[in-house]
Amino acid sequence: MGRWEPDSRGRLQEAALALYAERGFDQTTAAEIAARAGVTERTFFRHFADKREVLFGGAALLKDRIVAGVADAPEGATPLEAVAAGLEAAAGLLGEARRDLTAQRLHVVATNPELHERELAKLSDYASAVAATLRGRGIGEPQATLAAEAGMSVLRVALQRWAGGEDPRGLAEVIAASMGELRAVASDG
Amino acid sequence: MGRWEPDSRGRLQEAALALYAERGFDQTTAAEIAARAGVTERTFFRHFADKREVLFGGAALLKDRIVAGVADAPEGATPLEAVAAGLEAAAGLLGEARRDLTAQRLHVVATNPELHERELAKLSDYASAVAATLRGRGIGEPQATLAAEAGMSVLRVALQRWAGGEDPRGLAEVIAASMGELRAVASDG
Repeated sequence: MGRWEPDSRGRLQEAALALYAERGFDQTTAAEIAARAGVTERTFFRHFADKREVLFGGAALLKDRIVAGVADAPEGATPLEAVAAGLEAAAGLLGEARRDLTAQRLHVVATNPELHERELAKLSDYASAVAATLRGRGIGEPQATLAAEAGMSVLRVALQRWAGGEDPRGLAEVIAASMGELRAVASDG
Repeated sequence: MGRWEPDSRGRLQEAALALYAERGFDQTTAAEIAARAGVTERTFFRHFADKREVLFGGAALLKDRIVAGVADAPEGATPLEAVAAGLEAAAGLLGEARRDLTAQRLHVVATNPELHERELAKLSDYASAVAATLRGRGIGEPQATLAAEAGMSVLRVALQRWAGGEDPRGLAEVIAASMGELRAVASDG
């Protein structure tokens, strides 16, 4: 392995998620993650500030991608169409190769109360950013907030369905299907 | 004031919210709340485990009321109609006299990151309980989760609008109006 350890970040993520699943998040140390990945602890800390960042380090990029997708939606798009465009733009960040890693991540986060609260705060932060972007497109309140929050529910539901392997389609298609189910739920009353 | 201090709980809540708004939550002590309410610190701790419980002590009752309203909705109700019935049943817990207290509470919670995370966890817990109740009514997934989470977004939006005093109607009517806006947002795509 060369000085630049080109794939060490990816191997560290895989090692961390495997250990979190086997032993629990609280029982895993950065040193153990580094050992499992075959790198030094120093390399771990070159990539991640702490073991929690392995789970949340991609949040800022995902948020930027969602917000950019909402902002760039066609001019005549309705609020929910713009949110759907943002979610589909973000789906590309989670390629097919990451389906198993996403499943492990969701399980670890769901079973640890502190991580679960952090995840909720992350989704709430996405929703606030999306609502602000919708207001920038001329959408009023409460429509902007309702569309943004409904969109984050769709993202969560779709990620779980996709990562759980119940649905063989790609993430973008599962998101589109879940968005359709939201529309059906909201309109059948 | 007699031994039973009949309204000491209500006075403690009012004193606490006033102090949290004036000084900030972190800078307020239980002793100061008791002094402002004209009771002893011991009385404070007879009513609340800590100063955070002044803000979250009503959560379990509100959740029970929402869940009971969902469970008792008419048999033919759609998922979102059942959720709306739950929210309207819960609205009765927040009488007109509590509008200002609710406004103070929302402001304190929104401006303190730890309290904000707790509030998100509370709403997520409500949504899980409502989704489980919908599944008990024969609704499948992801419809149950999408309807439950959309309903909690409606509750949050309606509480803010009602407490903010922008809307003179009662809470149940503001909830119904917000539910209508959700339907419009979800159907116009």
